[in-house]
Amino acid sequence: MASSDKQKETVVLAYSGGLDTSCILVWLKEQGYDVVAFLANVGQECDFDEVEKKAYALGARKIHICDCREEFVSDYIWPWVQSNAKYENRYMLGTSLARPCIAKNMVAVAKQENASFISHGATGKGNDQIRFELACYALLPGVKILAPWRLPEFYNRFKGRPDLVKYADEKNISLGVAKTKLWSIDDNLMHNSYEGGMLENPSTEPEAVMWQRTTDPTKASDTPDLIAVTFDGGVPVKVVNTTEKVKITGALDIFLYLNQLGGKHGIGRVDIVESRFIGMKSRGCYETPGGSILFAAHEDIETFTMDKELIKIKQCLSVQFANQVYYGMWFSPECEFTRFCINKSQENVIGTVNLKLFKGNVYVTGRESPISLYNEELVSLDVQGDYEPMDAGGFIKINALRLQEHSRVKRMKM
Amino acid sequence: MASSDKQKETVVLAYSGGLDTSCILVWLKEQGYDVVAFLANVGQECDFDEVEKKAYALGARKIHICDCREEFVSDYIWPWVQSNAKYENRYMLGTSLARPCIAKNMVAVAKQENASFISHGATGKGNDQIRFELACYALLPGVKILAPWRLPEFYNRFKGRPDLVKYADEKNISLGVAKTKLWSIDDNLMHNSYEGGMLENPSTEPEAVMWQRTTDPTKASDTPDLIAVTFDGGVPVKVVNTTEKVKITGALDIFLYLNQLGGKHGIGRVDIVESRFIGMKSRGCYETPGGSILFAAHEDIETFTMDKELIKIKQCLSVQFANQVYYGMWFSPECEFTRFCINKSQENVIGTVNLKLFKGNVYVTGRESPISLYNEELVSLDVQGDYEPMDAGGFIKINALRLQEHSRVKRMKM
Amino acid sequence: MASSDKQKETVVLAYSGGLDTSCILVWLKEQGYDVVAFLANVGQECDFDEVEKKAYALGARKIHICDCREEFVSDYIWPWVQSNAKYENRYMLGTSLARPCIAKNMVAVAKQENASFISHGATGKGNDQIRFELACYALLPGVKILAPWRLPEFYNRFKGRPDLVKYADEKNISLGVAKTKLWSIDDNLMHNSYEGGMLENPSTEPEAVMWQRTTDPTKASDTPDLIAVTFDGGVPVKVVNTTEKVKITGALDIFLYLNQLGGKHGIGRVDIVESRFIGMKSRGCYETPGGSILFAAHEDIETFTMDKELIKIKQCLSVQFANQVYYGMWFSPECEFTRFCINKSQENVIGTVNLKLFKGNVYVTGRESPISLYNEELVSLDVQGDYEPMDAGGFIKINALRLQEHSRVKRMKM
Amino acid sequence: MASSDKQKETVVLAYSGGLDTSCILVWLKEQGYDVVAFLANVGQECDFDEVEKKAYALGARKIHICDCREEFVSDYIWPWVQSNAKYENRYMLGTSLARPCIAKNMVAVAKQENASFISHGATGKGNDQIRFELACYALLPGVKILAPWRLPEFYNRFKGRPDLVKYADEKNISLGVAKTKLWSIDDNLMHNSYEGGMLENPSTEPEAVMWQRTTDPTKASDTPDLIAVTFDGGVPVKVVNTTEKVKITGALDIFLYLNQLGGKHGIGRVDIVESRFIGMKSRGCYETPGGSILFAAHEDIETFTMDKELIKIKQCLSVQFANQVYYGMWFSPECEFTRFCINKSQENVIGTVNLKLFKGNVYVTGRESPISLYNEELVSLDVQGDYEPMDAGGFIKINALRLQEHSRVKRMKM
Repeated sequence: MASSDKQKETVVLAYSGGLDTSCILVWLKEQGYDVVAFLANVGQECDFDEVEKKAYALGARKIHICDCREEFVSDYIWPWVQSNAKYENRYMLGTSLARPCIAKNMVAVAKQENASFISHGATGKGNDQIRFELACYALLPGVKILAPWRLPEFYNRFKGRPDLVKYADEKNISLGVAKTKLWSIDDNLMHNSYEGGMLENPSTEPEAVMWQRTTDPTKASDTPDLIAVTFDGGVPVKVVNTTEKVKITGALDIFLYLNQLGGKHGIGRVDIVESRFIGMKSRGCYETPGGSILFAAHEDIETFTMDKELIKIKQCLSVQFANQVYYGMWFSPECEFTRFCINKSQENVIGTVNLKLFKGNVYVTGRESPISLYNEELVSLDVQGDYEPMDAGGFIKINALRLQEHSRVKRMKM
Repeated sequence: MASSDKQKETVVLAYSGGLDTSCILVWLKEQGYDVVAFLANVGQECDFDEVEKKAYALGARKIHICDCREEFVSDYIWPWVQSNAKYENRYMLGTSLARPCIAKNMVAVAKQENASFISHGATGKGNDQIRFELACYALLPGVKILAPWRLPEFYNRFKGRPDLVKYADEKNISLGVAKTKLWSIDDNLMHNSYEGGMLENPSTEPEAVMWQRTTDPTKASDTPDLIAVTFDGGVPVKVVNTTEKVKITGALDIFLYLNQLGGKHGIGRVDIVESRFIGMKSRGCYETPGGSILFAAHEDIETFTMDKELIKIKQCLSVQFANQVYYGMWFSPECEFTRFCINKSQENVIGTVNLKLFKGNVYVTGRESPISLYNEELVSLDVQGDYEPMDAGGFIKINALRLQEHSRVKRMKM
Repeated sequence: MASSDKQKETVVLAYSGGLDTSCILVWLKEQGYDVVAFLANVGQECDFDEVEKKAYALGARKIHICDCREEFVSDYIWPWVQSNAKYENRYMLGTSLARPCIAKNMVAVAKQENASFISHGATGKGNDQIRFELACYALLPGVKILAPWRLPEFYNRFKGRPDLVKYADEKNISLGVAKTKLWSIDDNLMHNSYEGGMLENPSTEPEAVMWQRTTDPTKASDTPDLIAVTFDGGVPVKVVNTTEKVKITGALDIFLYLNQLGGKHGIGRVDIVESRFIGMKSRGCYETPGGSILFAAHEDIETFTMDKELIKIKQCLSVQFANQVYYGMWFSPECEFTRFCINKSQENVIGTVNLKLFKGNVYVTGRESPISLYNEELVSLDVQGDYEPMDAGGFIKINALRLQEHSRVKRMKM
Repeated sequence: MASSDKQKETVVLAYSGGLDTSCILVWLKEQGYDVVAFLANVGQECDFDEVEKKAYALGARKIHICDCREEFVSDYIWPWVQSNAKYENRYMLGTSLARPCIAKNMVAVAKQENASFISHGATGKGNDQIRFELACYALLPGVKILAPWRLPEFYNRFKGRPDLVKYADEKNISLGVAKTKLWSIDDNLMHNSYEGGMLENPSTEPEAVMWQRTTDPTKASDTPDLIAVTFDGGVPVKVVNTTEKVKITGALDIFLYLNQLGGKHGIGRVDIVESRFIGMKSRGCYETPGGSILFAAHEDIETFTMDKELIKIKQCLSVQFANQVYYGMWFSPECEFTRFCINKSQENVIGTVNLKLFKGNVYVTGRESPISLYNEELVSLDVQGDYEPMDAGGFIKINALRLQEHSRVKRMKM
């Protein structure tokens, strides 16, 4: 594409330091590109210094390492907490939420570097290529994407891991601790996800050793932790551990703390088969410790403080949001709108939820709010309050009216 | 209403043998009614012989005791399993499902007894009066309902438990083991539900002694049970306990067995605040052991075998169904329609889910189906199969088209 | 209720000057109330001076006549224009929108008059009692409603029009032009609605004379009017009649002008059967001239300027909004939320629609917008533009993936 | 692709006889394919004999001409009538419905001819390529599609109409009446659609001469036709013209007759901008005379006979169906499901609607049904019937309960 005598084209490569993107970095240079590496810190396990050195060693002109953790929690995870969204009822969207955050920072680098190409190492069958590229196209219309795993000249040359290893060998790409992976891992602040390899047989239970983020529930602490999570506007603002007398505030600190507690108690493991955007079913295992705690807490305080008819509308928005995020549509008009509406719905979602964490479980044990719709006198079995029981009779009879009409028609048809 | 010189009107009373309905039975006779008692066995803890004797002792002309357990599982719980419905995302509808089953059998008795009145002891603030009466109106249009807790002549006379106890005393109504209840309990095959009393303060954790159906998870067995649940048409048809080499078939037996296992492992406890149909918020605690196991298993096999776009439509129907059932609309045109559609959606929901039950958790560990949409070759990271990675590039670019247009408009507005 | 020796209770009565509310005014006084009459000008045909005189003549302590027309258009009709809402796909909600506007002004009067009672002449079978009272309860919690047509002491005494006429006669209530009405009419700025009487047979075509607001389309002008309606934020801001060289701005003036034009061209007649909130089916005929023009224009400019996925979400909100408004839930949490979201969705709904008005029809003939998503180059059959046709092939093949999987499963089942 | 020494590959080409597909036919042969032409009669204007001759003249091995009109009406248009579906609220889906019908018949020919290739002349920017190909992939998984307008070797060679004309000249392809088209037309039994050319400027009114299917409303008959359309199961079974004393039965005859009547009265013209599946906005003009009449009639009888809560669920299904059909998903799992559910919803949609057709308008003037939910006594303003007005008071107060709670919270926040 870029010839040697022309000004070289700059490509910003999402670089992790791993085998795939290291080979891609070298390969891109081979194709005549000027490569700028980009690495977002979204909380994954990573020796960032090591990756930086490696990038330069492989010929990157520059590497940008951005600490996106605060932004990831505040701008992506918090809206998710407000939303109660799970894709297909179960997947907490840990990877899906990180992609637009990474892409946004990467686009900023591309603009800064005046690059018109962006490249990544995502495979051609997955969701991440979509999430990543849709975000780039939305934020930098006209950008050109180089996705080597979709380019025949690349994927026909590198048909599997052995080909990459051989290439790495030729090109002096260090492999680090080159372990044979039995599955593929993606991790960030929100979760670890596992797929591929032995997981591809959906009936096989994953080996215990796979789970790296949470303690095995059967081996987790016998002593529960009791915590209180306080929300304002549907977003967590304080966590108090009443067992350990600890108080945490600040978005990132809250999330890190809940991750640690959730990990300790083996919270947030799921093993699911999900429907990828491109239509195939895929099996994934996920560990979302802090997210699982916040999900339970938020769901409780929301139901406590939100009118029942608003809940119904919000349930719809929540399903929409899950699909939008999973499909990589974060920067779409509909997702911007949905986030805006969901945020509005959270105005009164204020209060504190008490939780007990124990061997994989998050139990809600109580909740309170300064502006709850819960009205102890109104609901009491022992106090009549303002409530007129006879009204319920009229309410029921009016509701029954159309049911009786339906019966009438049914009898006419017999 | 009924005068002594006229032929007495017959009323069928939903009779439990407890204090409230015993007083109501006597009070209805006092008002001049001929009382026929009705008691449905939907799996609740009850000494049916004792209740029968008591009904006659209090002056019932007759008592009908119907074993509705098979019907309850097959016609109400199984459609719920197919639906994945939870009201406000959390309540598994144990009471809501039992009411139409009870009402249907009671209406049959009313027809047999030629009774034009039906009576029950449900309170005037709750959902059960609605569920019960809407079912009766739908199945027996024109029926007259006597709900003493909504009649001023009754509720002004009996302002609380002490008044009822005093009346019982006067009328020789035996109180049985007259324990002071700290909360109100409803139980059936599907769940125990607790509300009222100390639960009315939503921030107070219920006492450990309240939970009667499930072992305290902190005290539950340290050894998981491994089971395999097989579905056909979205309905469980076989459970195999691979730990204990037990195989169960038959709707009722499957459900009873899963209840027992779930109880042993402390599965299915929730403590929630929910929105009653009449609009107030109410706190309830529920234990749904077998239901929770089936919910997890069905959700997994459904996602494994159902197309992703059908899943989305079914998610909507599931939310609708939850609301319909919670609101007592089982015999409504929309609920009949929704059940019919949900049942259709389950055609291909066939297969077996492996589960691990442990201290309050239901872990899915694998699944298989003779007709799954899961295609191991198609999804494999290692095999290309029929799949053309380049197609994904086109797919993404077409999806990006409107996002780029959206960006264009945004820039125009700046 | 109010005894003569006590301070008389003040009741604010929604007073129209007609037979029903005149009799109610007198009857309320008879019951011992101090009556304050209230009349909202929402654009209905009415001799306000005459009504004022009559109210005093009948013994009202005071009458408040509020001109609510500007508010009705800006705060109720405009949000409806943004929403594209029709109840059950056809009813443009003319009455439903006026009720909360009237109730809000009436509650203000009740507060000013320190009245704890509100009364109205709506029947016990209709929607209006509900809309009216729900608005009052929401805005003035604890208010006591006197709805004589639901009070046995009233409706058993006045069993039909003759009883009212007789009472009017006794009480010197002038009947005005006492015509025998063959149907009931409600009118306001937005529409005329007709129901009852001869309309109660749903197969009978209404007499031509019934329609009072619009010219019979068969007799309407043979010359179309061409107009251009300009929207900003989804709300009309200018109308230009290119045929007659007229330009109108200002919310009320625009609406009045379109009403006049629509009336001239026989636009906006419908004859429908609808489902009342209380569950019965009812037949209504409506004339909504200006509303019908705006509906067509807004729908066009919205589709022109709104992203297709946002359109889908908004379609759902529109249906919700129609139900909320029809059911009298304007001041509910869910309707406030829905209006807020719909308003947000209109940010980019900016532009001008050209219309041709002719014998009952509103034809859209063209549209333009400074920020339309329409991209003439992109869509052109003659120009390729940035668009890569090959991308569509990938798009289709990826979309086909799950359809082929579905076929695979189908064949497995054979 | 196919080399001359190998057995030639057979391709089935959707052939219309027009310039594009004639050139494609010859071009495919040039590429070495054995070409079988296919032409579906879905009611379009066409000299089928002429097309047949031309196909053979250009070298087609065979041409299959299938009369799909009965099937088109019964299996595609009737389900649409049941659905009340309009894409983006306005487009009646005339083209979208025909595509799967054509594709199904074409796939049958491909199977019969043992062809593994299918080809068509749809452009690379439109919806029809998608609809057509998705249907083919679903019905014949693994089929290979040749879409010349997406193949660079084709579209780079033929950059516009002049190149095609030149090629036709070279290859002796007769051009017939070679008129310069100012827009593109697609027509079938259900509608004429116009796009492209002068329509690409969305603010320009189309020339009057464009509309070919319906009389200009300003020139249409001054005498209305009165007709009665009878439905059973939501599908039209009889049309009676009470003006002309004509009675029509049979699916195709009914539809042809209504097309003729609608055309006479200028019914069913719309000019809209819509959102294509691939994301761009496009302007289309449509004439759907018979479909517009049936839409109005069906909507009326449905509301007359369907419970209000079922209506709401069906409204959702209708929107889903519109999207599915527009997006070419007819043979998808979700569309099969949706059709099944919609069909079920129509069980009681039985009865007759009276319509007046006049200058572009379809007025409903009355309706009747043997099993309507309309209950004249129940709804009457003059008769109380079984209805207890006091029940409405209870109904309203219970509905107000949460509104008052909402007010309480609002005041707490001040």
